[in-house]
Amino acid sequence: MKRTSYISELREMLALERSRGRKIALIPTMGYLHQGHLALVERAKQTGAFVVLSIFINPLQFGPNEDYANYPRDVERDAHLVEAAGVDALFHPTSEEMYPSPMVTFVEVGQLDTVLCGAKRPGHFRGVVTVVCKLFHIVQPDFAFFGQKDYQQFLIIQRMVRDLNLPIEVCPVPIVREHDGLALSSRNIFLTSEQRQQALILSQSLNEAERLWRAGERSARVLERRLREQITRESQGVIDYAEVRNAQDLSEVTNIESPVVIALAVRFGSTRLIDNKVIGVEARV
Amino acid sequence: MKRTSYISELREMLALERSRGRKIALIPTMGYLHQGHLALVERAKQTGAFVVLSIFINPLQFGPNEDYANYPRDVERDAHLVEAAGVDALFHPTSEEMYPSPMVTFVEVGQLDTVLCGAKRPGHFRGVVTVVCKLFHIVQPDFAFFGQKDYQQFLIIQRMVRDLNLPIEVCPVPIVREHDGLALSSRNIFLTSEQRQQALILSQSLNEAERLWRAGERSARVLERRLREQITRESQGVIDYAEVRNAQDLSEVTNIESPVVIALAVRFGSTRLIDNKVIGVEARV
Repeated sequence: MKRTSYISELREMLALERSRGRKIALIPTMGYLHQGHLALVERAKQTGAFVVLSIFINPLQFGPNEDYANYPRDVERDAHLVEAAGVDALFHPTSEEMYPSPMVTFVEVGQLDTVLCGAKRPGHFRGVVTVVCKLFHIVQPDFAFFGQKDYQQFLIIQRMVRDLNLPIEVCPVPIVREHDGLALSSRNIFLTSEQRQQALILSQSLNEAERLWRAGERSARVLERRLREQITRESQGVIDYAEVRNAQDLSEVTNIESPVVIALAVRFGSTRLIDNKVIGVEARV
Repeated sequence: MKRTSYISELREMLALERSRGRKIALIPTMGYLHQGHLALVERAKQTGAFVVLSIFINPLQFGPNEDYANYPRDVERDAHLVEAAGVDALFHPTSEEMYPSPMVTFVEVGQLDTVLCGAKRPGHFRGVVTVVCKLFHIVQPDFAFFGQKDYQQFLIIQRMVRDLNLPIEVCPVPIVREHDGLALSSRNIFLTSEQRQQALILSQSLNEAERLWRAGERSARVLERRLREQITRESQGVIDYAEVRNAQDLSEVTNIESPVVIALAVRFGSTRLIDNKVIGVEARV
């Protein structure tokens, strides 16, 4: 596996691969990798492309009171994991390499970024979209892979690519969960064992909401109320949001008639977890 | 010369050229071409690249009370001009091709877009930068050419390219003027013969400001006052702005110690003209 912190070195490497007719796949990450990331690698390798995984904890997407300084880091462990998984190149730039001078240019995806995590984390998606746009320009991938745990992020990136005519196929990869249902996240390491147990309420309440929907419930408000009640009753989690929204554009939904995403953000102590489930009438059979 | 209105057709064409080892040069325009545009073509051809000239009157960059509907158009005349000038491909998409669905993604270059034309035309540069970013993604040029008459636009595009790591060399091309000094502009056609005569005050007052600077004047305020006095005294032009600013970042200047741009926007009737001149201590000899 090749490994570099430098944009120019990465570009030379990729130009060579491209000149050999190789397609390029990009997996942008913030590191501290888990099986969810490795599922992205597996999907990327299926394309036959030269797979670049980037590790960059992007200061632009963290708010002033968020966990940028404490975000978990272990690049050597990550490097071993991705080499074993068959990644072709690991790109782990410094902040100075990515932001050599103060940024004045930003990319924003309106509408989609005003709800859910966008409403709770002002400026977060602007930071995400801007750094992903930079990475897209640096790597110029044919494919880019994003996990569906960050469902809103996936929609926003997909929309950016469409609106700005980026010649990139944005590929979503399903959420990977622990055996007991907890969605994998680099932030899970911050949970105490008690919080870890309580955090199961995210996937459990999503499953319960899906069950209700399968039983015929079509009111978004009823599902949201049940989610909130269950989370509050069965855990000490503090709900950031628990919402049912249109799965395509995240618009508000009253009666569930087309695919929706049920999206949760719940805090356990200082650790904020997100999870979601997409349900759609056509998937009902 | 090849000619298309379709993104997919253009991309196929360019992929073929690229596969032959050809570099690509892009000249984004709004059409109604003049010798200034042809100077861009000439510079682009000097690179040896496959030269794409785009014609697209971008609704996003016009304000509600601006001249989008009346902007001059003559694509057939333009096509003859650029074919004769040696352009390899003319791309003239429709608005539907460029904006098939409502745009929610925008690219903005802060700071540089808040002054001069940015202060007078809110949203203008956001529209320019967003459409240029789209064109950059559609064409993926190695070089892009912009006229220095739109000096602020050039700086903004250059900064976008740098901040977002676009692998494109942005090349400025000097202003082309009529024999009497009037900077070429597609909007000059709207001037009455009297206004056409009065519009000479833009280049004349810039020349006078440069003369004062060469004579030792270093006060930006003094130069600005002289510009305003001369324009007001010798024409019926209504000044939108007449400012001396840092040539690199458009910041305010008090004493001229490093290169500055003297920038003018003056309205004659409903026609708004811009012009500028860069002067710098090192050019003084």
